[in-house]
Amino acid sequence: MKVVSSPFLRACRREAADRTPVWLMRQAGRYMPEYRAIRARFGFLELCKDSEAAAEVTLLPVERLGVDAAIIFADILLPVEPMGVGLEFAKGEGPIIHRPVRSAGDLGRLAEVDPLEATPFVFEATRKVRAALGERVPLIGFAGAPFTLASYLIEGGPSRDYLHTKRLMHDDQATWHSLMERLQKVTVGYLNGQISAGAQAVQLFDSWVGILSPNDYREFVLPWTRGTIKGVTAGVPVIHFGTGTAGLLSLMREAGGDVIGLDWRVDLGEAWKRLGYDVAVQGNLDPAVLLAKPTEIRRHVRAILERAAGRPGHIFNLGHGVLPETPVDHVVAMVEMVHDLSRR
Amino acid sequence: MKVVSSPFLRACRREAADRTPVWLMRQAGRYMPEYRAIRARFGFLELCKDSEAAAEVTLLPVERLGVDAAIIFADILLPVEPMGVGLEFAKGEGPIIHRPVRSAGDLGRLAEVDPLEATPFVFEATRKVRAALGERVPLIGFAGAPFTLASYLIEGGPSRDYLHTKRLMHDDQATWHSLMERLQKVTVGYLNGQISAGAQAVQLFDSWVGILSPNDYREFVLPWTRGTIKGVTAGVPVIHFGTGTAGLLSLMREAGGDVIGLDWRVDLGEAWKRLGYDVAVQGNLDPAVLLAKPTEIRRHVRAILERAAGRPGHIFNLGHGVLPETPVDHVVAMVEMVHDLSRR
Repeated sequence: MKVVSSPFLRACRREAADRTPVWLMRQAGRYMPEYRAIRARFGFLELCKDSEAAAEVTLLPVERLGVDAAIIFADILLPVEPMGVGLEFAKGEGPIIHRPVRSAGDLGRLAEVDPLEATPFVFEATRKVRAALGERVPLIGFAGAPFTLASYLIEGGPSRDYLHTKRLMHDDQATWHSLMERLQKVTVGYLNGQISAGAQAVQLFDSWVGILSPNDYREFVLPWTRGTIKGVTAGVPVIHFGTGTAGLLSLMREAGGDVIGLDWRVDLGEAWKRLGYDVAVQGNLDPAVLLAKPTEIRRHVRAILERAAGRPGHIFNLGHGVLPETPVDHVVAMVEMVHDLSRR
Repeated sequence: MKVVSSPFLRACRREAADRTPVWLMRQAGRYMPEYRAIRARFGFLELCKDSEAAAEVTLLPVERLGVDAAIIFADILLPVEPMGVGLEFAKGEGPIIHRPVRSAGDLGRLAEVDPLEATPFVFEATRKVRAALGERVPLIGFAGAPFTLASYLIEGGPSRDYLHTKRLMHDDQATWHSLMERLQKVTVGYLNGQISAGAQAVQLFDSWVGILSPNDYREFVLPWTRGTIKGVTAGVPVIHFGTGTAGLLSLMREAGGDVIGLDWRVDLGEAWKRLGYDVAVQGNLDPAVLLAKPTEIRRHVRAILERAAGRPGHIFNLGHGVLPETPVDHVVAMVEMVHDLSRR
């Protein structure tokens, strides 16, 4: 089978396939012993920057799970690190930005970055994975969307209410839009670099955008997300993903993307109807369901496939990343269930 | 003006009023110096249990802000504390449950509670506030909904992914439903106790229900929420509130309530249309907007009022509680703006 006719790429284009394709966000991650073994030899950023190891990690779930796509092992903050914000991955804490961006002055101090020169290791890993995969399954590249990158840069660490982000957005709109413009430019270059290196589809992660009201999204985010998606090399499918976005879906659709990613807090059937059937959808199993017993997993998988009603253009996925507590055999079973229950 | 014809109670019944009524969740809270002064003399639970002080705190925002309703000062975990779960409010950490409920055995160890006997201080405070308010503004009572109470009891503390809750729900459905039945019973008694003591409307807080998929909500939550709302004394308006519920609104409507509470992550106009105009709505300003400059607050208030389109049955509120960082004068200004911009 040529990869161009893979179930995943066919679904991105809303073409019929012999089964519903499935992959998982964070399919190469802490829940997997093989990942933990490799990770024991590297810090997180080190691992991202070692193209050989990153390629090895990327390939793990293809072998182990039988998923229909690989996604390059990387982090959404890699392209902003060279701006000089002091990125660190503290153990068990997620990313910390030591010099957060909260004013025009902070923004002025950011280094100008050429994404094609700043993260050669990502493109190198992409080339290696693509060569290793051959015609087996397609490779997905990815980037953070401008809003989600901005919220990391502004908050500087984990946040519950995103108050710094919202304050900058509301009270210093000029600085906000300048920052978004910078991030749009970097993101477009970074995604197209991955495409040149071999990525056959890309996912734009606007993971935290669901904290915004629809009005704020429309005014402060939509133009920059749209610009980012428009900048992606023509012909390469874009998956536009966020969480907590049940109230933002029609605006995300306006911003663009060939596939809209759905988390689990929305009914896939209703969401697709609201989005329109001229766009594909991805999702939407609650990651917590993978901790339940297999009969319960099967019941939930079946319910989602029923909501998609066999319509071409559904990519099965979790609503967010695989949780570290997830048993690997549950993931393997879930991938089989999707293939099994959707076989046409 | 008789309180029965107050703008707030009229809006609950979708009757026209001369202005849009407004109150705020956590309107008596840490952002307010008068509250902090009283709070300095009590632990949080102590304050809830001192009916004199709780009544005093309840009345503060009526004087200071000019809101259209008071809400009794209490905590949603008060009626479950007497079950013997070891509730503590640790400084700056929110509630901790020292003996979480995660199995049939744990459930069996819970004490049987008569809500009318277990929390006399809440009813006492309610009587005092009602007497003090006279005909000025109505008094709202409240309780946690069974799901949100259950998630606190099961997690035992703050949670990001609610994995214990979801695991119990999926893997031990009998225990789950027994727990929900217990909580429904306690909640109904507790709400009706507040009504007997003088509350003229009640709000059911299902604050964390937005973490569920619509299918799980329908199966594991809806019947118990419906039972709770049905159990409330006839004729008293029920506000049914949750956050992150943009994908659950039609199911919440099915569960019941005279007013559906909306957080800020959904467009009020679209949500109301989807819910149907035979129900009132409450919301939906992003609490973070109150940290912005007044011109920006006004712009956001106006946008929400425009979405409500002057239709009777809109109660203005935040989408969740007032943030501790909020300047009091911004809150005062916001209440004035709502009255001002909605005056008919």
